[in-house]
Amino acid sequence: MELLEALNWRYATKKMNGQAVPQDKVDKILQAAHLAPTSSGLQPFEIIVVTNQELKEKIQAIAYNQSQITDGSHLLIFAAWDKYTDERISGIFSRLNIERGLPDSATDDYKNKLINLYTNQTAQQNFEHAARQAYIAFGTAIAAAAELKVDATPMEGFDSKALDSLLNLEERGLKSIILLPLGYRDESNDWLVNLKKVRKRKEEFITELN
Amino acid sequence: MELLEALNWRYATKKMNGQAVPQDKVDKILQAAHLAPTSSGLQPFEIIVVTNQELKEKIQAIAYNQSQITDGSHLLIFAAWDKYTDERISGIFSRLNIERGLPDSATDDYKNKLINLYTNQTAQQNFEHAARQAYIAFGTAIAAAAELKVDATPMEGFDSKALDSLLNLEERGLKSIILLPLGYRDESNDWLVNLKKVRKRKEEFITELN
Repeated sequence: MELLEALNWRYATKKMNGQAVPQDKVDKILQAAHLAPTSSGLQPFEIIVVTNQELKEKIQAIAYNQSQITDGSHLLIFAAWDKYTDERISGIFSRLNIERGLPDSATDDYKNKLINLYTNQTAQQNFEHAARQAYIAFGTAIAAAAELKVDATPMEGFDSKALDSLLNLEERGLKSIILLPLGYRDESNDWLVNLKKVRKRKEEFITELN
Repeated sequence: MELLEALNWRYATKKMNGQAVPQDKVDKILQAAHLAPTSSGLQPFEIIVVTNQELKEKIQAIAYNQSQITDGSHLLIFAAWDKYTDERISGIFSRLNIERGLPDSATDDYKNKLINLYTNQTAQQNFEHAARQAYIAFGTAIAAAAELKVDATPMEGFDSKALDSLLNLEERGLKSIILLPLGYRDESNDWLVNLKKVRKRKEEFITELN
């Protein structure tokens, strides 16, 4: 199974070698994230792809100076909706119905139920829910990168408020949540590359109720 | 690319046909989730696999009677740690060092930093963070199922408190967050199977900063 091999091959690369990932591979990784399922199909997040080196340096400075941000060629920033709104939800369903050749009435009941549900939650609850959906796509992007033998490093360690401000995400109703630099491992300078991949014991991870 | 094909093939199956997924395929799906990356490698969640039909019926009753729960053969329940504790974090690092043949002192500084960080957050903040990690693995499990041509339906619509109580998850320090029934699509009775898969326009999903 290709995916399991890929997941065994990958690791959170600590040192990248500066080699650029070809654009067609980046596009496939983004496509995988784009195809990931989300709650009610809302896709409540966006991905910002940074290749500008100067901008990557600014981001590195607010991300504990992690070297992969500048040694990787593409930095993916996953940013979730700050909240659900009637407009955002209606926009998604409107497009869905156009693409499927259906009238808006086809989804009105369901859509109104969702709008009612989410707009009665706090913005923080909305955001946490949106962030979770982005993490599904994040998992898919990591799997796609690994299948393409592209290295990637999941990164939550950064100042999200400073990044939101740097990229004017707030005015777009977005909050940055997690980063994924893409590049290639520098095997001779990465302290993690040869250490054993360790996971919890299966019995601590899975319970079977038969 | 196998993964993109698989992601295009999959959809949130609305009607399953009762055929059982072979155990070796379920095992591979679980292995993919087990291999998924998590923040600091803590894997702050577990998966409960329910095949018992009577138990699945009880769960269905607290999950809007969604038919896939009983028409699928295996129900995966992703449950996140309710909070991070010194004991849980230390347990993970202790095992990591044993497996890598390193002394505990190898990770003491990093481990203590983590314990300090998480135990100064609220339990709710801890839980939200743990849940996000589980969603990375959830994305990986969905990709694995699709690659194996196993259908799966992401489900957040259930009474998590009732499920936690039914499975005594609270006493294990776990909270159920998302379900994934595994099975096979019933093409002639699934209203969604032939509808077009729709995603946001690429330009609404991706911003490039070059």
